[in-house]
Amino acid sequence: MRLALWQTAGAPSNAPADNLALLDAAAAKAVAGGADLLLAPEMFLTGYNIGREAALATAEGADGPSARRAGEIARTHGIGLCYGYPELANGGVVYNSCLLIGRNGETLLNFRKTHLFGDLDRAMFAPGEGSAEVARFEGYKVGMLICYDVEFPEAVRALALAGADLVLVPTANMKPYDAVSHFVVPARAFENELFVAYANRCGIEGELDYMGLSCVGDPNGGNLVLGGEGEELLFADLDPARLKAGRAMNTHLRDRRPETYAV
Amino acid sequence: MRLALWQTAGAPSNAPADNLALLDAAAAKAVAGGADLLLAPEMFLTGYNIGREAALATAEGADGPSARRAGEIARTHGIGLCYGYPELANGGVVYNSCLLIGRNGETLLNFRKTHLFGDLDRAMFAPGEGSAEVARFEGYKVGMLICYDVEFPEAVRALALAGADLVLVPTANMKPYDAVSHFVVPARAFENELFVAYANRCGIEGELDYMGLSCVGDPNGGNLVLGGEGEELLFADLDPARLKAGRAMNTHLRDRRPETYAV
Repeated sequence: MRLALWQTAGAPSNAPADNLALLDAAAAKAVAGGADLLLAPEMFLTGYNIGREAALATAEGADGPSARRAGEIARTHGIGLCYGYPELANGGVVYNSCLLIGRNGETLLNFRKTHLFGDLDRAMFAPGEGSAEVARFEGYKVGMLICYDVEFPEAVRALALAGADLVLVPTANMKPYDAVSHFVVPARAFENELFVAYANRCGIEGELDYMGLSCVGDPNGGNLVLGGEGEELLFADLDPARLKAGRAMNTHLRDRRPETYAV
Repeated sequence: MRLALWQTAGAPSNAPADNLALLDAAAAKAVAGGADLLLAPEMFLTGYNIGREAALATAEGADGPSARRAGEIARTHGIGLCYGYPELANGGVVYNSCLLIGRNGETLLNFRKTHLFGDLDRAMFAPGEGSAEVARFEGYKVGMLICYDVEFPEAVRALALAGADLVLVPTANMKPYDAVSHFVVPARAFENELFVAYANRCGIEGELDYMGLSCVGDPNGGNLVLGGEGEELLFADLDPARLKAGRAMNTHLRDRRPETYAV
């Protein structure tokens, strides 16, 4: 499977229609590059640092009009899509969520950010209740986390124990947290015997200076690809042979001793 | 606090007396370099890849003659010591253990490897039952793990939740597992807001080709120091200000959501 990681600042207007137009163009470019799945950043649809009012005003259901339009884009180009958006759920609760959409436009998975980061997230969103759900895509079992979630080894471990081969992580990570791309993402892939794909925003948004550095952690150690600071469409080939080699070399999952972890 | 990491192959004879003589000399060198604590590798006292019979034959209690001699060395030089050895426990059970000895020669902590690695470890040792015990040394709360243990985020997390500021890790890690030094140790330090000191064996021992790459993970991201492949005494300054800065920047411990981790 070939993955396209889209490191982008999104549309300056933050309007969902404008970002969906960019998504359409990026999907075409990803398909031209041979990609099977396009991964966009956290809160791609509306911008991230937009404040509580804008988050509430633009939030839609997981099957809302923007999700349906994204489904059309996926179907038109025949490519899977994963992107972040503000989700309006029952009772008017708003989550920081992401959707995984299949090649035929069908929704495969919805995930709600479980670990909210600082005042920014907490002002806008309710925390998700955690999920280790995985969906099938191109023979891979795929799970999702959002940004700060991946920094918690417990969250990635739960997905690994649920059988995940690949964890998709839309993110909006800012300086000075570049250690996440350089060390944490590769460690998660290594210790859990799976691929971790981390697609970040770039550019400046209010007081946030996004670091870029989108990457794909390799179960054999290190990153398969690592982006720069600016707008970029990165491609990574997830070779089943690399996954198999990582699982032959590493034995962490079977050697865990949960009875000794009092946490 | 200044830490000395001793990357060594130990004595070719594998005799405890010979390794204790080397420890005496290394302690002198560490003190001359201003170190407060000397960290030696896993199974430093006897060699690691020595087989079941030799492990049984050389195993001693945590207060055995070699431990007492190490206590004398600590007291003579006025330096803390941490090193690995085969521990003979009640009922003839043998563990892959390490000792932390204070400047006055007193035993501060004993730890038994909890995650045994492959057939090599399992042929020689019983697994420890896990411990998140910490001891005070120079104002730091210090915990210990051995080699493969540190690759399990759960084990380091347990020490962090027990208040550890520093995790000492005697290790005997071989090629091709260099990802542990490059990615895993820095990730552990970052995600747990503590220092992780990892002192490896070097050279060849039977079929094992040790990778060296002893290192100290920094709570701010990355490694403070990273060794080469051969014999080396590495110094690292553990600055309380760095620890404080890492804890100001990172909020993982307080943002954990254990109720969402079904593992």
